[in-house]
Amino acid sequence: MTSWIEIDKKSDFTIYNIPFGVCSINGSRKRLATRVGDQVIDLAKVADLGCFQDLRISPSVFKKETLNNFISRGKRKTSAVRKRIQELLTTDSFLKDHPEVFLAYDDVEMHMPVEVKDYTDFYSSLDHATNVGKMFRDPENALLPNWKHLPVGYHGRASSIIVSGVDIHRPKGQYKPKDAKKPVFGPSQRMDFELEMAFIIGKSTKLGDSVKVNRAEDYIFGMVIFNDWSARDIQGWEYVPLGPFLGKSFASTISPWVVTMEALDLLRISSPEQSPKVLPYLRQKGQNHFDIDLKVGIRPENGEETIVGTSNFKHMYWSMVQQLAHHTVNGRNINVGDMMASGTISGPTEKSRGCMLEISWAGTQPITLNDGSQRSFLHDGDTVAMYASGEKDGKRIGFGMLESKLLPVK
Amino acid sequence: MTSWIEIDKKSDFTIYNIPFGVCSINGSRKRLATRVGDQVIDLAKVADLGCFQDLRISPSVFKKETLNNFISRGKRKTSAVRKRIQELLTTDSFLKDHPEVFLAYDDVEMHMPVEVKDYTDFYSSLDHATNVGKMFRDPENALLPNWKHLPVGYHGRASSIIVSGVDIHRPKGQYKPKDAKKPVFGPSQRMDFELEMAFIIGKSTKLGDSVKVNRAEDYIFGMVIFNDWSARDIQGWEYVPLGPFLGKSFASTISPWVVTMEALDLLRISSPEQSPKVLPYLRQKGQNHFDIDLKVGIRPENGEETIVGTSNFKHMYWSMVQQLAHHTVNGRNINVGDMMASGTISGPTEKSRGCMLEISWAGTQPITLNDGSQRSFLHDGDTVAMYASGEKDGKRIGFGMLESKLLPVK
Repeated sequence: MTSWIEIDKKSDFTIYNIPFGVCSINGSRKRLATRVGDQVIDLAKVADLGCFQDLRISPSVFKKETLNNFISRGKRKTSAVRKRIQELLTTDSFLKDHPEVFLAYDDVEMHMPVEVKDYTDFYSSLDHATNVGKMFRDPENALLPNWKHLPVGYHGRASSIIVSGVDIHRPKGQYKPKDAKKPVFGPSQRMDFELEMAFIIGKSTKLGDSVKVNRAEDYIFGMVIFNDWSARDIQGWEYVPLGPFLGKSFASTISPWVVTMEALDLLRISSPEQSPKVLPYLRQKGQNHFDIDLKVGIRPENGEETIVGTSNFKHMYWSMVQQLAHHTVNGRNINVGDMMASGTISGPTEKSRGCMLEISWAGTQPITLNDGSQRSFLHDGDTVAMYASGEKDGKRIGFGMLESKLLPVK
Repeated sequence: MTSWIEIDKKSDFTIYNIPFGVCSINGSRKRLATRVGDQVIDLAKVADLGCFQDLRISPSVFKKETLNNFISRGKRKTSAVRKRIQELLTTDSFLKDHPEVFLAYDDVEMHMPVEVKDYTDFYSSLDHATNVGKMFRDPENALLPNWKHLPVGYHGRASSIIVSGVDIHRPKGQYKPKDAKKPVFGPSQRMDFELEMAFIIGKSTKLGDSVKVNRAEDYIFGMVIFNDWSARDIQGWEYVPLGPFLGKSFASTISPWVVTMEALDLLRISSPEQSPKVLPYLRQKGQNHFDIDLKVGIRPENGEETIVGTSNFKHMYWSMVQQLAHHTVNGRNINVGDMMASGTISGPTEKSRGCMLEISWAGTQPITLNDGSQRSFLHDGDTVAMYASGEKDGKRIGFGMLESKLLPVK
């Protein structure tokens, strides 16, 4: 498949990708969009040109504030729209006569692609869970007894999920310095990122229903990169016995383009053998893991970026379909727009750790950035950037970049 | 203040209450309503009669599917509407000529009063936290070190909050029987309720802002009774280290009428002395506790109700304004419709325990119901009912009843 549009071979946004997002131009009304190479395609305009008419999907769907309405039309429709866009950019030359639908990426503002109804964060990387367990609990028994029997997860704050490019402020909170008798209040001293991926629910269920593990992907629309900002000192003091709360809830950042499961088919790989064997409701068939290269970098104020972690989504112990089957096995309903994040994705090596807590081993092993400055945790003015992409048979797709700057406490 | 409508002295819905809810009649479109005695007042019709015209609030506000739009108009408007309704039912006799606005309570169907954006559950009863700590951890150190320094809380599942009258199914899940080597999968064997109250956010904030403890009530619209259904066996196995998840998320039930903070002023009392002294951002002025009698009962299939717990909202250690100040101190935003529950409200005596886990002491001390049957935890067919009301100077207000039946596993 070759497009008549020039697309850099290194671009994440090849003709094989065709992700969906929400954009605006100079403060104009939001509309749905896709991206090829460095160009954003205004899908509202494409729809107004009648390009989706025979697919029986109204142009109004492409003029909403989020993708939720589009996604809720179902995969049959959204896949047909994606294929049509691929046709329009390859075999069909109709859009050549309509340059008004093409926008330079730098001219558009990207917005939250979905309205997130409920947000869940899992904890599904074996290496991450093991590293954290070693640091905070017993190095000999780093993993808790339930970890290999179910994908541990918890509910997070949906309304503080923001899109790449929106800066955040260092949070204030309560924490207990090591060896201190009493907790103190102030700006977090241990600001961290977590390199994660998240999937977005594409099909709702009713209360009382469960999603079967081998049907679960029918309920997943696509994925984004997810930075689960974490204030380790606040989290460490507050989290017993009910889990992370203010150490996480101040903000989470996602990448703007939702890459569909159809596109991600390219990167599908077998899931790892799980031992002990999981209970029947978690037994999956087929290839449910994905070979997606991940990178996270820190760019100091007015400085250059240093890549501090290089991982891969394939390092997950639990697959997305297992996470979703477990999530709904108690009959809890899911809704289009629900977001479910993977948990920090660390690999088996030191270079493949996905958060500063692991990279600096709880601050005991600071790293040196390209500009010579050291980091145990994040400094004010640091921009955290995350990248996710994959390639197979010379076909490349990716998520582009997620970035957000840590501003001083407000 | 005396109404020209006959209201039973024992009614929770006196002229001093005037709560807000959402109802429909024979499947008609939803509309906002209030209740006095056994009569529901159709506020959409009252608005169409022009009764709120001079308050500059459009009749369309009373024809929405939830209270969110009404609440977001701000306390000045919502309080004015409430006062106007009181006038219409006391000094003003205009509505006497409009019987069409009055509906018999039994003819209307009540719906979810608000769209819940984000839901948080706190753990703010000292007696409950102490009892649970004794059962599950160290009787000598039942409270964890952070408990008296901050209101411990966690995020729950917003989309599975349902209104009183909607039955639920016993959830399935993974749990590890005592002394078993491996976890098993099946219907929960330890189904429980939690007697809680919840408050509803009435004013939104922006990401990065915090709500000060002594301004926090400006952000609280009103309250409901909250049953935080819990599957203890699922919860016990899954909750380390990230907190409750599937043991709670299958459903939570709220009462249909939102009682405003203006009405609850009647029941305001001083907050208890807190020792150790809390950090400055949690230091509250004035009376932030409320004297609300609480009851929870179990009604077996075709049986009569047995009251199994009698508590009071005044037993909370942390007040709602402290919970909200803590919740937002990290700069996390709140939205109109957010719901924040108290956690199980237990008192100091055996009779004042708020969940079966405490009442039957983890199943070791089953109780006997009026029909002679025993309960350690809930049986299929049991209806759980909760009541909340208060009285002062001969003035009574209350929340009415919350009830929901536990159906067999689906």
